[in-house]
Amino acid sequence: MAKVPDSKEKTLAAAAKLFRCQGFHGTALQDILAAGGAPRGSLYFHFPGGKEEIGEAALAMAGEATRQGIARAAEASESAEIFLTRLARRMASDLAESGFKEGCPIATTALETSAQSEVLGAATRSAFQKWEHEIARALQRFGIAADVAEGLATIVLSQFEGALLLARTYRDPKPLQRAEQALKVLLTAYSSK
Amino acid sequence: MAKVPDSKEKTLAAAAKLFRCQGFHGTALQDILAAGGAPRGSLYFHFPGGKEEIGEAALAMAGEATRQGIARAAEASESAEIFLTRLARRMASDLAESGFKEGCPIATTALETSAQSEVLGAATRSAFQKWEHEIARALQRFGIAADVAEGLATIVLSQFEGALLLARTYRDPKPLQRAEQALKVLLTAYSSK
Repeated sequence: MAKVPDSKEKTLAAAAKLFRCQGFHGTALQDILAAGGAPRGSLYFHFPGGKEEIGEAALAMAGEATRQGIARAAEASESAEIFLTRLARRMASDLAESGFKEGCPIATTALETSAQSEVLGAATRSAFQKWEHEIARALQRFGIAADVAEGLATIVLSQFEGALLLARTYRDPKPLQRAEQALKVLLTAYSSK
Repeated sequence: MAKVPDSKEKTLAAAAKLFRCQGFHGTALQDILAAGGAPRGSLYFHFPGGKEEIGEAALAMAGEATRQGIARAAEASESAEIFLTRLARRMASDLAESGFKEGCPIATTALETSAQSEVLGAATRSAFQKWEHEIARALQRFGIAADVAEGLATIVLSQFEGALLLARTYRDPKPLQRAEQALKVLLTAYSSK
């Protein structure tokens, strides 16, 4: 398989970071060029569909990186409680280390574009669905029944997304710490179902 | 007290709706003028600070409307469970009736601007904090201890915000229905604390 050209990867990584920090509409093509260091010509060569095509590929890349992060957190954990605690603390430390700039890599673009762009709407939907699926798979591996795990995965992802939104807006990790406590309570209740 | 001029109110209502559907950066001044029906001159007269000043006022207006909605839902409810169920179902029906366009009026702008604009960051922070406070006040009125109510209010708001994000992105109310179930479980657990 041919290696993905470096300038394409750099452009996507730069775009994903900008979309994460300031959203899709707040990021101009010029910003992506400046941050990615790719010449304008290479951008048009790799992404003839322009900013929407960059958005779709950047969301897919960022979504897959997070999905892999969830899978790795599950593998490194001995119980569902340790798994969810690990995810909450990772989010809190990533957010604090970035000066409260780097929250969810998908949520901002999802909210901005879900009513506007079929392409970006589908890309954000796909990312969230894969995360839910990965969380559900982990919960099942820790002994939770399949149908319970599916519902609980939606609840877990909602709690994390909401807490991340509040923590970012407040510039305070407390909502993620409270999410961690809530998920322990929910885990106990749903494990006995 | 002087009556707020009609064109100012209309401009703010139009701006708040546009920010809710497509975000702050995705909305041009021209869109606000077209949707609000105000002449360009009146916009510069009422908001000399431009789009950021409109954003700040529109967020304050939308935040206050939601805070009042939370307070009314609490007054109309006989228990904390009925209160939270009422909020979840209101969000689900508002979202579905708008064709999955009208989610949280604050979240999109919060994520887009929290790292960029002190003014808009403060406006979104203030809206979320007032909602949390209103939820905590209601939970206390339904018999939950003050310190428990404060933590639970953050968890409730996180769950709603995350579920609203997923429901909007999936164009499916299921995450809000699952949030409703989760909040019943959390309420039972936290009420006995």
